Amino acid sequence: MVYRASTQRIDRDQELRERILHCARARVSEGGFASLTMQALAEDAGIATGSLYRHFRSKGEIAAEVFSSACRVEVDVLREILQGPGTPAQRLSAGLEQFAARAWHSRRLAFALIAEPVDAEVDEQRLLFREAYADLFIELLEEGARLGAFRVSHISLVAACLVGAIAEALVGPLSPPARAAREAGTSAMDLATVSQSLITFCLRAVGAPES
Amino acid sequence: MVYRASTQRIDRDQELRERILHCARARVSEGGFASLTMQALAEDAGIATGSLYRHFRSKGEIAAEVFSSACRVEVDVLREILQGPGTPAQRLSAGLEQFAARAWHSRRLAFALIAEPVDAEVDEQRLLFREAYADLFIELLEEGARLGAFRVSHISLVAACLVGAIAEALVGPLSPPARAAREAGTSAMDLATVSQSLITFCLRAVGAPES
Repeated sequence: MVYRASTQRIDRDQELRERILHCARARVSEGGFASLTMQALAEDAGIATGSLYRHFRSKGEIAAEVFSSACRVEVDVLREILQGPGTPAQRLSAGLEQFAARAWHSRRLAFALIAEPVDAEVDEQRLLFREAYADLFIELLEEGARLGAFRVSHISLVAACLVGAIAEALVGPLSPPARAAREAGTSAMDLATVSQSLITFCLRAVGAPES
Repeated sequence: MVYRASTQRIDRDQELRERILHCARARVSEGGFASLTMQALAEDAGIATGSLYRHFRSKGEIAAEVFSSACRVEVDVLREILQGPGTPAQRLSAGLEQFAARAWHSRRLAFALIAEPVDAEVDEQRLLFREAYADLFIELLEEGARLGAFRVSHISLVAACLVGAIAEALVGPLSPPARAAREAGTSAMDLATVSQSLITFCLRAVGAPES
């Protein structure tokens, strides 16, 4: 009986932990990390603030979990395209197009993940995920260089440049002022423009022949 | 007399504030933002920890001041080169070379400024300074596009890509693991390599004719 009671307890704990993270992610998608407070989160999850601390050491830890689970999905989606069918240039284009489109359709969340000022725990995760993205590009660049599709020599550095360029290209268009301008109809930058400019920038930068 | 006493007090306050910031900057240059604690800083400045709080609300505020004063210098140095003599492509190359060299020679500080996980106040400043850098590139890109030296259409987006690429290219080589590898003689990436790869990446990306 003791054993059974404790497995039930573990299952309940796990379930509550997941519910908390689900609520946290919904908050960040809606209002960014700024709206992720322990009090609001406890209310969303229908528990006492103190109970949150039985599952997570701090708000920073929750923010870092929301960050890493959302980013893991993006890395997986990008990997599938970069390792999929097509020439290296086609795959790079398709990966960038998909990445920009996904960010565009979850703007608030994408801006939060890429650039919103937030706890150092999330910054730590940002560094790790930028390396994960860079690793995907390294693989593609190596293949492209072997096939003569790209002209690159210091591949890890070029991969880092791509990661930086992609993130920064999206920060502006996804940022709160840009979103407000678009909603007010005063901004000309749409998804197709951002996506195409980013693709052109990156293909040229890796020395792909221009089509 | 009252008036004189208060101006003396203001001068003394200003002087102490500057001394604190000087000590804070020395700490960050030596051990990154991680080594900037209120207690250590008070010791360096030879004052009580409580006195620090009479001048600054929080450690985050001090970190943000160290960040912005160091970055202001870098923006000014880059502006001078980008607005200096030479063709747009020459100025872009010279600006990148100088930026990389300055970062390389103050590695610990440069990594802290660009990427070290730290208080949200510093992240806020990072977003602002990235815009300041982007503005410098926008000016150069507009001139280059007018003169036919660069082939770029959505200039603000391309400028953002450049800012991202430059920052990210330096994060890896400046990061603590890379510094340790270089000190142990196990890394092949030297300043000239990083600098030249970055220049090639950026010139190609903006459609400058290859020389």
